[in-house]
Amino acid sequence: MAAQSKIPQATAKRLPLYYRFLNNLHLQGKTRVSSKELSDAVKVDSATIRRDFSYFGALGKKGYGYNVEYLLGFFRKTLDQDETTNVALIGVGNLGTAFLHYNFTKNNNTKIQMAFDADTNKVGSKIGGVPIYHIDQLENRLTDVQAAILTVPGAQAQPITERLVQSGITGILNFTPARITVPEEIRVHHIDLAVELQSLIYFMKHYPTDE
Amino acid sequence: MAAQSKIPQATAKRLPLYYRFLNNLHLQGKTRVSSKELSDAVKVDSATIRRDFSYFGALGKKGYGYNVEYLLGFFRKTLDQDETTNVALIGVGNLGTAFLHYNFTKNNNTKIQMAFDADTNKVGSKIGGVPIYHIDQLENRLTDVQAAILTVPGAQAQPITERLVQSGITGILNFTPARITVPEEIRVHHIDLAVELQSLIYFMKHYPTDE
Repeated sequence: MAAQSKIPQATAKRLPLYYRFLNNLHLQGKTRVSSKELSDAVKVDSATIRRDFSYFGALGKKGYGYNVEYLLGFFRKTLDQDETTNVALIGVGNLGTAFLHYNFTKNNNTKIQMAFDADTNKVGSKIGGVPIYHIDQLENRLTDVQAAILTVPGAQAQPITERLVQSGITGILNFTPARITVPEEIRVHHIDLAVELQSLIYFMKHYPTDE
Repeated sequence: MAAQSKIPQATAKRLPLYYRFLNNLHLQGKTRVSSKELSDAVKVDSATIRRDFSYFGALGKKGYGYNVEYLLGFFRKTLDQDETTNVALIGVGNLGTAFLHYNFTKNNNTKIQMAFDADTNKVGSKIGGVPIYHIDQLENRLTDVQAAILTVPGAQAQPITERLVQSGITGILNFTPARITVPEEIRVHHIDLAVELQSLIYFMKHYPTDE
C-alpha cells in the first residue's frame, strides 16, 4: 500500500479503464497484449501506458508485450476488486434510471444496492433489480453504504448532500449542475453535462488535432 | 488566437466551469470576486485559479480581487460564446432524455438542435423542445451540425460513429461504455459511467483527503 500512495493521480484515474479492457481480453482467452493494442483500445498513447505500468513494476517485453493475467492480478489487487463497495443512487429521474439500467456489476464489485426518490409512484418498485425507497427513509437505510450517486434536481443537491454526509457516506458522484460543499474528508467527483459539452466544443475549436 | 494555443489543456478544461460561475455572479449583480470565493465555488484551489487566470493576462488586485465583467468578456471571447455550435443527440433512451431535459442554453450558445432514435414510437415527438427523427434520417438531417452526443447502446456506438463522421461531425461526446475509433481529426470525449464510479471508489480508498 505504501508504494501505491506514490502513483500520480493522473495514472490512478486511468486504472479502472485499463482494468476493464484487460478483463475483457482475459474473458476472450487472450494471454498477452502489446502497449500498441492497449493504446488503440483505451485511446491513451503508448508512451503514457508504458509510464503508467512502470509505476506498478509491470515491464513489457519487446516482441511479447504484457502478460494479461499478471496485469489483471495486479490491477485487481490495486483496485480492491475483491472488496465490494455499496452504492446508493439518489434521484430516480431519467439520469438515475439510466444508471440503474447500466450493468455496473459486469466487470467489478461495485454495486448499486438501493435507490431513493421523493415520488411515491416510484417508491416500492425496482429498476434493474434495485429497490427504490422514499427519500424520507435515507437515514434509516444507509447503514452499510459508502458511496452515493447524486442525480437529483440542482436545488436539492446541497440539502441531500448534507444528509448523506450525516449518514456516513464518504464519496459522492455528483451528476447535478450544482457544485456541492462537503467536509474535506469526503471525496466528490463532479460531472456536469453542460460543462462536458462546452468543454468538448472548446477543444474542437482550439485543439482540433491534439491529444 | 496565437496566445490561446499556449493555454495548457488542463487550464482549458476548467474554462467552461469558470465561465459558468462568473456568469451567475454577474446575473446576481456582483462586480468583483476574490480567488478565495471562486475557489470555494468551483472547488479548484486558489493557487491554480491564479495561475490559470494569469494565462489570460487577468491579474487579481490584492484586497479587490478580479473584475467580474472584465473576466466574463474575456472568457466569452475565449469560449466563442457568440458563435453557436449545433449539436445532435443520438439515442433517446433514459440518458438521452435526461440530456434533452437539461437546460443547455441557459448560460451558453450550445444547442441540441435535433435528436435521433430507432424507435418509431419516439420519432415525430419532441422532448424539451427538441424534435426526434428516425435514425435512418441521420445523413439527410446533419447538414449544419458540428457535434454529437452519443447515448446509444454500446453495440451501436461504432457503426453510428462512422455514420456521424461521414456526415461531417467533428466532435463526439461519447456516453456509451464502448471506446470508439475515429479519424485523428475528430475529437472524442468519453464519459463511461462505470469507470467514473470505479474511479471515485478507488480515490475514496487511496486518496481519502487529497485534491
